[in-house]
Amino acid sequence: MSGARTHRLAALVERLVAHHLDGVLITAPPNIRYLTGFSGSNALLFASAREVHLITDFRYKTQAAVESSDVASVRIEESSLWAGLWKLLATMTGVEAIGFESAHLPHRDFQRLLEQGDRWHWRPATELVEDLRSRKDAGEVALIRAAGAIAMQALQETLSGVRAGMSELDICGDLERALRRAGSDAHPFAPIVATGPRSALPHARASTRAIAPGEFLLLDFGASTGGYCSDVTRTVVLGRADSRQRETHEAVQEANRVARVGIRAGMLGREGDALARSVLEARGMGELFGHGLGHGIGLQVHEAPRLSRLAEEVLPPGSVVTIEPGVYVPEWGGVRIEDDVHLGADGTELLTDFTRELLELS
Amino acid sequence: MSGARTHRLAALVERLVAHHLDGVLITAPPNIRYLTGFSGSNALLFASAREVHLITDFRYKTQAAVESSDVASVRIEESSLWAGLWKLLATMTGVEAIGFESAHLPHRDFQRLLEQGDRWHWRPATELVEDLRSRKDAGEVALIRAAGAIAMQALQETLSGVRAGMSELDICGDLERALRRAGSDAHPFAPIVATGPRSALPHARASTRAIAPGEFLLLDFGASTGGYCSDVTRTVVLGRADSRQRETHEAVQEANRVARVGIRAGMLGREGDALARSVLEARGMGELFGHGLGHGIGLQVHEAPRLSRLAEEVLPPGSVVTIEPGVYVPEWGGVRIEDDVHLGADGTELLTDFTRELLELS
Repeated sequence: MSGARTHRLAALVERLVAHHLDGVLITAPPNIRYLTGFSGSNALLFASAREVHLITDFRYKTQAAVESSDVASVRIEESSLWAGLWKLLATMTGVEAIGFESAHLPHRDFQRLLEQGDRWHWRPATELVEDLRSRKDAGEVALIRAAGAIAMQALQETLSGVRAGMSELDICGDLERALRRAGSDAHPFAPIVATGPRSALPHARASTRAIAPGEFLLLDFGASTGGYCSDVTRTVVLGRADSRQRETHEAVQEANRVARVGIRAGMLGREGDALARSVLEARGMGELFGHGLGHGIGLQVHEAPRLSRLAEEVLPPGSVVTIEPGVYVPEWGGVRIEDDVHLGADGTELLTDFTRELLELS
Repeated sequence: MSGARTHRLAALVERLVAHHLDGVLITAPPNIRYLTGFSGSNALLFASAREVHLITDFRYKTQAAVESSDVASVRIEESSLWAGLWKLLATMTGVEAIGFESAHLPHRDFQRLLEQGDRWHWRPATELVEDLRSRKDAGEVALIRAAGAIAMQALQETLSGVRAGMSELDICGDLERALRRAGSDAHPFAPIVATGPRSALPHARASTRAIAPGEFLLLDFGASTGGYCSDVTRTVVLGRADSRQRETHEAVQEANRVARVGIRAGMLGREGDALARSVLEARGMGELFGHGLGHGIGLQVHEAPRLSRLAEEVLPPGSVVTIEPGVYVPEWGGVRIEDDVHLGADGTELLTDFTRELLELS
C-alpha cells in the first residue's frame, strides 16, 4: 500500500497549495491511518510539500516503524507529543501558515497552538482528508469487499443457530463469535440485535428480551479487516411470517433493490435517497422511513458522503455507501435491509451479497 | 438513581459558584450520562443553579424522557442542537458567564460559541464533572461489582474451552460470546488476546496466531452493565509452565497482591504505583514494567485517577481503580494480572475475584 499512501499524501499537498497553507497538522486517528498506515491511537502528523513527520510515543516505536516509515519520518517522544511538534517545527524554514483539523482538535489543544505555537499562523481546515477518503482506491474497495464477505459468513452461521427463547444478548454473542472466527479484526460498532417490537427502534442495542415464534429478528452489524468496515442489515422472522410482516418486508426489499440498481456516482445525496424513499412513499410508508438512506463507509463506519433528504453534496466516484431503507411501526416492529455498494466511475458494484428474500427460520 | 443524580447536579452547581460561572454547557456524552442518566450519543446539557436542560434530537425523544425527565427539562430539536441552545439561552436572565468543556469541545464548535453565542461570556473549564465522577457512590460501585462478576464468569467459561491450535481470534470470539451470555451490555474495549511472544505487547489485539502447548495466554478484557465497566487481566499457560514462566508470573502475582493490600484512598497516584513497582524492582524486573500501575474505571474504562510514576494527584475516597502490574520480555512473552479495587473512605474492596495462581490449562 506504500504507493497508495504516497499518492494520498501528494493529493493532500495539492490541497494545501490550493488553500495557501505551508503545512498541515493532522490529529484525527483515521486520517493519520489513511495517510500513513499508522494504526495506533496516539499520534500527531505534520505534512508539507517537503516533509512528512509522524510523532508518537514509545509504546508504538516498533509499530510506527513497520506501518509508516516508508512514507513518514517517525519521531518517538518520551514525554509530550506537543513538545515534539514544537521541536520539529522549530527546525523548519518557510513554514508559516499551518492548517489544523477544526472538527477534530479539542479547544484545549487549540489553546496550545495559540500559546506554545505562537510563532506560526494556525488556520482551521475541515474535510481536507475526509474528501480524499471518500474516493476509495482499488485496495480500499478490496478490503471493504473482504469485510463484507466476513459479515455474510457470520450472518449465515448465526441465523442457523437461532432458536425460540434465545435472548437478543445470546444471539449477539453468537454473532460476535462467528465474526471473530470468520476473521473480523474488530467490531466496527456494537451489533444491533432487535426482536419483535424492538425491531421498530432503529438504534436498539441487544437486550435480555427473548425471541418468540412469529417475531421479527433484525441484525445490523459489521466486520472489519485491515481497518476497513462493512455494515449490513437483514430482518428475518422466526417461524412463519404473517401477511403484514411479508408486506412490510417486501416494500423494504423493493426500496433496497431500486436504490441499489439506480444509484450512481455523480448523483446528489438526496437523489440517491429519493430512489428508495419514492418506493416507500408510493406504498404509503414514506412517513415510516424516519432516517436517511445511507452513509459512506471505509476506515470509519460513518463517513462521507451522506444519502438523505437534505444531502446536497455529489456522491463522488469511488465512494462506498450503505443502502439501508427501513420501515418502522412503533409497538409493532420494523424492517431494514442494508447493503454496501461501491460507486465506481464506470458502474456500481455490490459488496455484500446475501439473500434479501424474507427468511423464515425453522 | 434519581436521588443520586440530583445530588450530582447539586455538587456541580457548587463548583459553578466556586468558579464564578452562571451556568455550564456539558458536551461529553459520559458526563451527560453521569449527571442526567441519558445514554444517547447526541445531546447538549445546560445546567445552572436554577435549571437543567437536555437538548437532543427526535431519535431520542422517548429514551430521553424515560432516562432524564426527573432531573432535566428535555428539549427535542428537529434541526440543530445548537439552534436549540441559542433559543434556550435567550429565554434566561442573569446568565452571562458560561463554562464549557475545553477538553471535549472541538475547535469547530468553540467557533460556534464565539460567533452564534456572542451574547455570552464563554469560559473554558476542565475536570468539572470528571472530578465528581472519580468519587463513586454506592450505586456506581454496585454496578462495577456486577460488571466484575460478569467478567469472571465469562473468563471461567472461556478458559475451559481453550485448546492447542485455536487462534487468538477464536479465543476472542469465545470470550465475547461468553460475556454476552453472562449479560454484558457492551464490550468496554476490544479484548486483548495474546499468545506466546505476543503476550509481551501490552496492547496486542487478537490476531490469527494459534496457541501451542507451553505458551502463555494473556486475556485483558471487561464487561459492562448499566453503563459501568470492569477491566481484568489474567495470564495462564496452556499445558505445563516452565520455570521462567513460573518465576515471572509469581513476581507479578506478588506485585498485584502487595498493591491490592496496601493501596488506600488519600495516597498519591505515584505512591500507589510504587507499591507494585518496588516488588518488581527488588527482583530486578523494574525495567520490564513499562507502564503505570492502573487507572480509574467507571462509565469509561479509562478515567481519573491515574496510578503511575508521575501521578502527583491524590487518590480520592470513593474512587475505583485498576491494579495491573506487568512484566514484558520482548520476543519471549509477558505476564499481567489486573484487578479492580474500590478505595472507600474506610477500607478498600476488591471487585474482581478470580484465582491469581498460575493456571495450567489442560
